[in-house]
Amino acid sequence: MIIIFGATGDLTKRKLLPAINNLHKKGLIDCPVICIGRRDISNTEYIKLVGLKSSDSFSKLIHYFKTDLTESNNPLFVKFIKKEFKEHKCKGKLFYFAIPQKLFKPVIDLIKASKLLSGGWNRVVFEKPFGYDLVTAKELNKQVSTIFKEKDIYRIDHFLGKELVQNIQVLRFTNSIFEQMWSNEFIDNVQVIMDEKVLVGSRGGYYDNAGAVRDMVQNHAMQILSLIAMEPPKRMTNEEIIKEKIKVLKALKPVKPSDIVLGQYKGYRGERGVDPHSDTETFTALKFNINNDRWKGVPFYIRTGKALSKSLTEVNLVLKRVKSDLICKNEVPNIISIRIKPEEGVSIRFNNKLPGHGLETSPVKMDFCHRCLFDNNPEAYEVLIHEVFMGNKGLFTSWDEVVHSWKFIDDLLSKNGKVRKYERGSSGSMIARKLLSKDRREWVEIN
Amino acid sequence: MIIIFGATGDLTKRKLLPAINNLHKKGLIDCPVICIGRRDISNTEYIKLVGLKSSDSFSKLIHYFKTDLTESNNPLFVKFIKKEFKEHKCKGKLFYFAIPQKLFKPVIDLIKASKLLSGGWNRVVFEKPFGYDLVTAKELNKQVSTIFKEKDIYRIDHFLGKELVQNIQVLRFTNSIFEQMWSNEFIDNVQVIMDEKVLVGSRGGYYDNAGAVRDMVQNHAMQILSLIAMEPPKRMTNEEIIKEKIKVLKALKPVKPSDIVLGQYKGYRGERGVDPHSDTETFTALKFNINNDRWKGVPFYIRTGKALSKSLTEVNLVLKRVKSDLICKNEVPNIISIRIKPEEGVSIRFNNKLPGHGLETSPVKMDFCHRCLFDNNPEAYEVLIHEVFMGNKGLFTSWDEVVHSWKFIDDLLSKNGKVRKYERGSSGSMIARKLLSKDRREWVEIN
Repeated sequence: MIIIFGATGDLTKRKLLPAINNLHKKGLIDCPVICIGRRDISNTEYIKLVGLKSSDSFSKLIHYFKTDLTESNNPLFVKFIKKEFKEHKCKGKLFYFAIPQKLFKPVIDLIKASKLLSGGWNRVVFEKPFGYDLVTAKELNKQVSTIFKEKDIYRIDHFLGKELVQNIQVLRFTNSIFEQMWSNEFIDNVQVIMDEKVLVGSRGGYYDNAGAVRDMVQNHAMQILSLIAMEPPKRMTNEEIIKEKIKVLKALKPVKPSDIVLGQYKGYRGERGVDPHSDTETFTALKFNINNDRWKGVPFYIRTGKALSKSLTEVNLVLKRVKSDLICKNEVPNIISIRIKPEEGVSIRFNNKLPGHGLETSPVKMDFCHRCLFDNNPEAYEVLIHEVFMGNKGLFTSWDEVVHSWKFIDDLLSKNGKVRKYERGSSGSMIARKLLSKDRREWVEIN
Repeated sequence: MIIIFGATGDLTKRKLLPAINNLHKKGLIDCPVICIGRRDISNTEYIKLVGLKSSDSFSKLIHYFKTDLTESNNPLFVKFIKKEFKEHKCKGKLFYFAIPQKLFKPVIDLIKASKLLSGGWNRVVFEKPFGYDLVTAKELNKQVSTIFKEKDIYRIDHFLGKELVQNIQVLRFTNSIFEQMWSNEFIDNVQVIMDEKVLVGSRGGYYDNAGAVRDMVQNHAMQILSLIAMEPPKRMTNEEIIKEKIKVLKALKPVKPSDIVLGQYKGYRGERGVDPHSDTETFTALKFNINNDRWKGVPFYIRTGKALSKSLTEVNLVLKRVKSDLICKNEVPNIISIRIKPEEGVSIRFNNKLPGHGLETSPVKMDFCHRCLFDNNPEAYEVLIHEVFMGNKGLFTSWDEVVHSWKFIDDLLSKNGKVRKYERGSSGSMIARKLLSKDRREWVEIN
């Protein structure tokens, strides 16, 4: 049984229900989906609202239930859930918190008061970011922990459900060509690029409080960074992998103010839900350093922002140049690119001979188009909700990761510099050009 | 001025004249092309015979001259050449020996007696193989050397004119991802595959005397092998490169009889020009070992043959497996493939995560399609003839290479084992499966 708090929200409509629907179609989920919202609408109206047809077999699983989440004494709610659970012989309950953080406590109180956590498994799913900083994250975790054990708490970072993010470990640990390259001996720098064309849209209220660092870096970027940088775990178990990921977070050197670039797109202050005097960053570029043997001297550059010229998420490992200088005209360094979205794939940029006489070189690309081969990658939410059902925590953020990530980000944000304005449609590479050019490097531009 | 001996032969018609025509179209060659043959035909008839139109500007450069090459006293021939040379203010003479080896001596005598080697540069081009073994190669070279200096002798191995063969050095020396991989630390074995679908065709007379080892291995395979295996030269000069290539040839260990596979396709004995009792091999697979630090323990497998199921020439560097055994279900070793023909390109086979839950792997390929990007690669002969005009010997086989290659091949052929019959259309991998399976390896199959 799935109980979604925040039934009429954007996430539920756009991501959760389509994902659960797909799992249903594949025969992986066949239990009631209780959608809890404030709006006074009928089940039929709700099904229409979320864009489903009442004739669909999936629609028959959906039950809209109107309730005020701030009321912990809610006997109707309890009765409804218990009846449904019993009737459908459900094996467990998945509580999905698709609601603003301020509602987390009331809902936890509601669950606690309702004594719903008996019978089968009970798991709870939170959206990122988990907390606003280390203090609030701890507070939230304390509240959740009064009713859920850590093993039953699933903190979503939907990037971890993305096929190409999951692929990182396979690439590293099953291919000698990558395995051997994975250190400062061969890598010059790593670039994690998460550019977005979209503006802040309908998320102004949330976003203006968070900003790009909390919205994207604290979670997505830190996850990708730790997957890329971690030492090989002893075994590929969730426990051992998390142990290694945390070691990376702990080894991050505090960021210097000069290694932080913050920007805000022009017109942001006029967006709905945004403070007209807001200094929230909608763009950031950061230089991280990891204090260990493998990555000594290898900067990790992180970049993300809204209202940029392109939408793409990719990890670029820029290799050191060749040792020999036998042929040296237009040579470029090799780049291993892992494209996470939208065009999933893996590529290597290399120098090729320019046809004709002599040894002039030209940079070209060897490409693996993931989508061309596997054309039906499940959406991240589909993957993740299924994992919760299976009780696999491998693709979720552990509490320790949250702690160490916030520790680092809190320190970083305390050094907040000036937020510079940029034109909508700017290139992320241009806005943050100096961050790399002062190191005599360039942002990777692969198209 | 170009003087082709063997005007009516297959090579002249199919390769040389089209190549010279292309160079003419590009404005790189604008001098008379004297085509010497035995047939008593007019210039017009000759132009038609080689598939040209008399209205083409290129046809105007062509002058057919009938003569008996075995007659060294040939005043008409001399007069004709001298007249043409003077009239067109040619800068030099390129003598192209597109004739059977038995005619080399008479033609050399003819050139010598004619005193044609004055005025401008004089260069001579020989087709491979140069000689039949070390003894005959030395004999031939002695004859040639009576009139040409080594610097003016161009021994063609047309593989060296192929863009992707020339590319090998650029790939190795300008890309750290390849440079660092290039040793027994990372490479498990190298496979040079030169399969041909064609039968012996009209070349039976020549081929039955030569066989696959002399026709393909002594020249093409040895060139590719030495380009792949050579140490980085001190500088990218022809001299330094040849020095390193020869070191490889010298470091080749004598081949054991058990490392030689020979085959003959069924029906070969009935081909035109072939001895009905012939034991000539039309297929060979060989295992070579290089006795130096870089390649200790890395076998180089060579395979070539006619009447096979596919036509392709490629070099495959099969990498060692990963050191970690974290994920080990269906992992395959990485392979760097350099496709020389027909689909020029570079690819890397690697293990990718199979989409879905868990860490199952699936072998996939990152590919660079050379032809897709550079759709107009000049044909090898065009490249090579132009190089002769420019006086660049870099893409030709030096005398020392010929010597060391024949030394090695003579030894190999002295161990000739049984020639086994194989069906036409067989797969090369199947015929020579055991050669690798006894080493617990497999031929690379990339499509």
